[in-house]
Amino acid sequence: MIDYIAEYLENIRSRRVFPEVKPGYLRSAVPDSAPLEPEPWDNIMADVESIIMPGVTHWQSPHMHAYFPALNSYPSMLGDMLADAINCLGFTWASSPACTELETVVTDWVGKMIGLPAAFLHSGSRGKGGGVIQTTSSEATLVALLAGRTEAIKKYKTNGSDVEDAEVSSRLVAYCSDQAHSSVEKAGIIGLIKMRYLESDVFLSLGGGELKEAIERDRRQGLIPFFLCATLGTTGACAFDNLDQLGPICEEEGLWLHVDAAYAGTAFICPEFRHWLKGVEYASSIAFNPSKWMMVHFDCTTMWVKNSGSLHRTFNVDPLYLQHENSGLAIDYMHWQIPLSKRFRALKLWFVIRKYGIKGLQKHIREGVRLAAKFEALVLADNRFEIPAKRHLGLVVFRLIGENILTERLLKRLNSKGNLHCVPASLKGKYVIRFTVTSPRTTVDDIVKDWIEIKNTATTVLVESEEAKPRAKVPLGGKLISYQNNLPKSLFVKNIFLKNYEQKFMK
Amino acid sequence: MIDYIAEYLENIRSRRVFPEVKPGYLRSAVPDSAPLEPEPWDNIMADVESIIMPGVTHWQSPHMHAYFPALNSYPSMLGDMLADAINCLGFTWASSPACTELETVVTDWVGKMIGLPAAFLHSGSRGKGGGVIQTTSSEATLVALLAGRTEAIKKYKTNGSDVEDAEVSSRLVAYCSDQAHSSVEKAGIIGLIKMRYLESDVFLSLGGGELKEAIERDRRQGLIPFFLCATLGTTGACAFDNLDQLGPICEEEGLWLHVDAAYAGTAFICPEFRHWLKGVEYASSIAFNPSKWMMVHFDCTTMWVKNSGSLHRTFNVDPLYLQHENSGLAIDYMHWQIPLSKRFRALKLWFVIRKYGIKGLQKHIREGVRLAAKFEALVLADNRFEIPAKRHLGLVVFRLIGENILTERLLKRLNSKGNLHCVPASLKGKYVIRFTVTSPRTTVDDIVKDWIEIKNTATTVLVESEEAKPRAKVPLGGKLISYQNNLPKSLFVKNIFLKNYEQKFMK
Repeated sequence: MIDYIAEYLENIRSRRVFPEVKPGYLRSAVPDSAPLEPEPWDNIMADVESIIMPGVTHWQSPHMHAYFPALNSYPSMLGDMLADAINCLGFTWASSPACTELETVVTDWVGKMIGLPAAFLHSGSRGKGGGVIQTTSSEATLVALLAGRTEAIKKYKTNGSDVEDAEVSSRLVAYCSDQAHSSVEKAGIIGLIKMRYLESDVFLSLGGGELKEAIERDRRQGLIPFFLCATLGTTGACAFDNLDQLGPICEEEGLWLHVDAAYAGTAFICPEFRHWLKGVEYASSIAFNPSKWMMVHFDCTTMWVKNSGSLHRTFNVDPLYLQHENSGLAIDYMHWQIPLSKRFRALKLWFVIRKYGIKGLQKHIREGVRLAAKFEALVLADNRFEIPAKRHLGLVVFRLIGENILTERLLKRLNSKGNLHCVPASLKGKYVIRFTVTSPRTTVDDIVKDWIEIKNTATTVLVESEEAKPRAKVPLGGKLISYQNNLPKSLFVKNIFLKNYEQKFMK
Repeated sequence: MIDYIAEYLENIRSRRVFPEVKPGYLRSAVPDSAPLEPEPWDNIMADVESIIMPGVTHWQSPHMHAYFPALNSYPSMLGDMLADAINCLGFTWASSPACTELETVVTDWVGKMIGLPAAFLHSGSRGKGGGVIQTTSSEATLVALLAGRTEAIKKYKTNGSDVEDAEVSSRLVAYCSDQAHSSVEKAGIIGLIKMRYLESDVFLSLGGGELKEAIERDRRQGLIPFFLCATLGTTGACAFDNLDQLGPICEEEGLWLHVDAAYAGTAFICPEFRHWLKGVEYASSIAFNPSKWMMVHFDCTTMWVKNSGSLHRTFNVDPLYLQHENSGLAIDYMHWQIPLSKRFRALKLWFVIRKYGIKGLQKHIREGVRLAAKFEALVLADNRFEIPAKRHLGLVVFRLIGENILTERLLKRLNSKGNLHCVPASLKGKYVIRFTVTSPRTTVDDIVKDWIEIKNTATTVLVESEEAKPRAKVPLGGKLISYQNNLPKSLFVKNIFLKNYEQKFMK
């Protein structure tokens, strides 16, 4: 298996990144029922190559540009091999002390690495705050929402009211930007909480004004604003909400501010990207995914809270079979999360940090940004394309100038060829292709090869389309083209941002 | 790492099963912050043995009898190594078709292996029902509760009402037995749902009468009963709710019946244990953990639903970046679960089933039951002890006859010695030690060795205790001793159950 894995990862370029199979392909290739007798190992391994691999989307391929990166690395895989061998369930400290304690240590390490205030660290908050590894960002957001709900209900009830929790809950209102991830919506659905999707600005960023207005509007209707999920690095275009404006408002208005930095969080290991974190000192919680860019394979979401008491009050159930001699003296992570049990995920995170060191991780991030900037420059040099939202970090969004259908056709054609893989996003009605730089194996050659594929496919699509009327060339570093000015709060700010930034990471 | 793991697992008996460390032990052994420079691999591996292992509770040890088993196996670990190398995120079919399709196939395999009705299979329900791998039982229960809530609200609203969802929700009532796992309570807390803990009977089992009465009582108060979580194999004593009575009531009253068979589910691979499943045809959902007894390492919870539309209606958020050409034609598991993403867990499950075959898994289960029965016989032969609830499957609960404090002292002493590890439970006020047979490496010699340790420690505890006044010997197969008759609905039904069962699995 070790040999198979090494061969798979080192020669992953030889595989089609996006599979050609149709729904149901696998079922017809395997028996209807489990075998009665044990099967030889060789048969199982043979099926891996003949049945599984043809249906795999190869997320580790340098030509995988869809979604956000979900990278692995050898230290991460080794860490999980060890975790799987130990296979302890970390729900209480006693269920495996090393599991809990290493988690408190590495979340402190990561918190310091990205520049979080001491109030978010176990070591810096005198045990009041601290980090925890959640399974996914979806869960981190839900946990934050539920903890915020607990606090809001508690606060409401201290004002002398004795209504039921569910009744208070029905008057709660949460906020996020219209660019927030679908998991924020899902958290609201699960919590049966009213969620308002506030309009992001021309930079796809949520600012203080919108929040302030919404809070006032809701208070006037007798509702109780209690929660904001701000995003650092949105899914659509890696935009950043204005934490520096939002933070003080949340503090003033008594809102739980949760910061979802799922993708961009890794970048904060590099000090030059930390300006987006300004205002995080007002947050009640923040989470990001080392399972995305940091080469700690899925699942691994680090989350920090300032007040773990809120989590305890939200999740505390304490049956006798889970009590132990050090209950109360040590952290029992079961009170910090939705599931009871957790895997020993701190090991893989610890291994990755030690094997790369902070400098190694910074180098990896900067290389990803450099390659994205390289791709951006290639797109900008072709006048048939536009980049309708500023590139941040490793994500470039681009589209063919003109109707959405052109870009839709281009993407469909690219994905069906399977040599590279991207997914779309809708930015205020504009269909774009998202191109994220993923694998640490990606080279400039890979990027250039992808761009040639995109260019040539675009030519085919444009020739085939009646709508294919390339617009006049827009000079690099030029100004807005006319029709864009007709759109309210237009996103079409192509090029003007770039003059300042495009060379920055093009080392 | 492979060598280290093999050495660890094959020689695990040489390690103290329960660690001697105190809270904070690990933090003082590692640096405060992450290293700037990469570290050599040898340093990391050295720390594994010197820093991590002293704080590990060794769940794979034959002397681990706490909680429920959480077993691994080589095929399972190999399956996850491959999954980690591929590291695809299975949220939609397109994000990695093989991940989704293998999950539908193996959940069908497992469903058939444990004798579920065809309505729970992808292949048997024409796509209406089917299986999914959840992260934990906690999540499976929560998902079922939320889906039940969705259906209840939908039904209420078709009756012509236009109240808010949250308002309907505040009138919903869910039920479980007083023996249900803490995760059921937690699901209620998360959903802000009223949860009634119905009194279990003398066998620690929930019957139809209690449910029927509770439903009527709640309806009279204008509340809306909508959900029952029945347990097959409770945490305290591996008791079984009476599905055959509960099922028809749930159908009649329109309740979503979820069956939590977290531990016992694996046993249903053996036909002789399936009688407890009678009535499952009335369930809306059922889940168990292959990550417990089935040697598929954590995390892995298989869950089946009859109507996946209920899950879709509960979780459906569908942003453009997650839509694909086969949306609607194929299963997108993101609509079946709380998190967006999932690991390729079907691989480890597939590997284990194929490498053991159904017969191999049956042999493993029967051996666990045989060893538990062996332990039970040893306890029964010592008149200082009692077994206050019938043994089922691989769990024996026992206590020193007399005050709770005696058994508490015994357990504390055993765990501090660290040669074996157990946790307590409270069965209607009686403190018991739970002894589960865990590892597939466990032999009769291990069990005998553990029993000698328990016996000898008991002698010390009894001698030390002023309360140590051993009661009169109760003959094997005898009748209730007098003071037990004074307790209402007493659990002290020692021995009377055993005459019929004790030889059954003592092959």
